[in-house]
Formats: sequence, C-alpha cells, structure tokens
Amino acid sequence: MTNTLEATTQIITSNELLDHWIGHRRLTRRTIEAFPEKELFTYSVGGMRPFAEMVLECVAMTIPGIIGVKTGEWNTVDELMHHSRKGTPTTKEELLNLVDEVTEQMTELWTEIPEERFREKDRAFGQWEGTNYWFVLYWIDNEIHHRAQAFVYLRSLGIQPPFFWER
Amino acid sequence: MTNTLEATTQIITSNELLDHWIGHRRLTRRTIEAFPEKELFTYSVGGMRPFAEMVLECVAMTIPGIIGVKTGEWNTVDELMHHSRKGTPTTKEELLNLVDEVTEQMTELWTEIPEERFREKDRAFGQWEGTNYWFVLYWIDNEIHHRAQAFVYLRSLGIQPPFFWER
Repeated sequence: MTNTLEATTQIITSNELLDHWIGHRRLTRRTIEAFPEKELFTYSVGGMRPFAEMVLECVAMTIPGIIGVKTGEWNTVDELMHHSRKGTPTTKEELLNLVDEVTEQMTELWTEIPEERFREKDRAFGQWEGTNYWFVLYWIDNEIHHRAQAFVYLRSLGIQPPFFWER
Repeated sequence: MTNTLEATTQIITSNELLDHWIGHRRLTRRTIEAFPEKELFTYSVGGMRPFAEMVLECVAMTIPGIIGVKTGEWNTVDELMHHSRKGTPTTKEELLNLVDEVTEQMTELWTEIPEERFREKDRAFGQWEGTNYWFVLYWIDNEIHHRAQAFVYLRSLGIQPPFFWER
C-alpha cells in the first residue's frame, strides 16, 4: 500500500467521460448502419430483442438520465418506458436520425451539469440508489452490452461488424 | 456553458475504477458458471470464438496491462499472445481458478500504481497510443463486450444469463 492517501485522487474528468460515451455512441451508430434494414428491426438470436429495440432502450435512457444527473429530478421507470414508445422509429434512417438528435442533445445538456453532481448520491429514475458518476458508467456499459449482442447478430447474418476499437 | 472552468474537475477515483472493474469481473465469473462445461469451450454463434477463449483474451491482458500502467513497461502484443497460450485452462474449474487468481493479483497490483500514472500518456503493449486511464476503460469495455456475446450464446442454448445489473 504505497499510496493509500492518494487513492482518493480523481483520475477521469467529466468531459473525458462524455467523450468516452460519445465514442461508444459513434460505434453504436456504425453498428446500426451495418444491419440490413429489415434485420435491424426483426432479426434475433436465442429469442432476444431485435437490435433496434435495444438501441431504443439505450437512447430512451440517455436524455432523462442526464437530466436526472443534472437536476436531481428523475422520470420514473414507467414514464421512461412510456417515453420510449413515443414516436418509435420504423426505418433505419429514422433510427439513425434519433440517435444523432439524442447525441447532440446529450452533449449540450452535459455542459450544464454542475460538476459536484457527479459525486453526489441519488436515486436514478426514482428506483436505483447510487452515485451519479456510476449511473453514467452504467448507461455506457449497457450500451456496450447490447451493441456487443448486435455484433453476434451481424456475424450470424454473415456480416462483418465494425471494429470495436474504432471510436 | 455555465461551468467551463470546472469541466476539468476529475470525477472518478482510481479505487472506484478498480471497484467498477472488479464488479464486472464478478459478473464475468457468474457468466462462466452459467455455461455447461462442454459449451463453455466449444459453443459458438456465427463462427465467433467460444466464450472460454474470449475470457482468456480478457484475463491475459489484465495483469500485463496493469503492470504497464504501473511501470510504463509493456509486454508487446506478441509476448501477450504467447503468454495467453501458456497453461491454458481446459475445464470450467481451471478457468474459474484462473479468473480468481488474476482478480486477486490485479487488486494487489492496483494499489501500487502511482496515481499520476493514470493521467499520463503511454503506448499500451508497445502499440496503442493513449492515456493510461483510457486503456483501463478499454479493457473493462472489452470484457463487457465479450461477456455480452456470451449472453447471446447462453440464450441460444436456452439458458438464462445472470442479471447484468448485479455486480
């Protein structure tokens, strides 16, 4: 234990965390693009959801999530589920447009988050207790998780997925 | 832009980043446990690798990666690939034991990383340029990515994967 005292030093800035998320969002976008239009909304392995539905889950959480981190005011999970069913995209182009809109909004909203909020405890969507930075990591991880499942869908369709390391 | 100045505040500590990784490692462990022994080493969808091979990739990077972050001395990718073929586990129990050993080692080594190293630029495994905290995020993301693919394998085998949110 050579550096017990320094172990509370913070090592990642909020801007870096946003960049990390946006990099993953770009990869998610390329993954959507790799799908044939029909399979994006219908193809499944092992009874799981089509990739378009997984993307909608991730995208539907982004803005209400960031607003929660910013303000401490959270939609409930029910409101979130309701929100995510409104104006659901039915084509690849509509889905890509939604992803782009949300990405633009998240970047704007992020700059308005008071920095101290990231280290505050809260109850995300009125349900999950934790620290705000951790909720953000969770949403990023959730996006990585579902997109990785889409990589398997693509491979089983004989399509080369985008490169994981390219952001 | 209400808080341009504060945007360089760090929001995640090195201990929290380790906890985040270890939480994911526990979920990876539960995912291994969910597989039947044979399928862990042989089952594949879309011509991808069996999950045991993906786990070995993740686990093989962990210790050399943390040593690189700690010391600035990196194995090359060739050495890494060689290392990952040494004493390869052939049973579920051996794989779980390897995961446990590596998790214990990583926790010990982590406390020896000088905190300033996380913000320094380096060339991971002699090949990828970046900042050390970002390499760590990459290794965690890579583990999430491959484990998510194993979730599809499990579903297509008719097996319920562990809960993603449980760490």
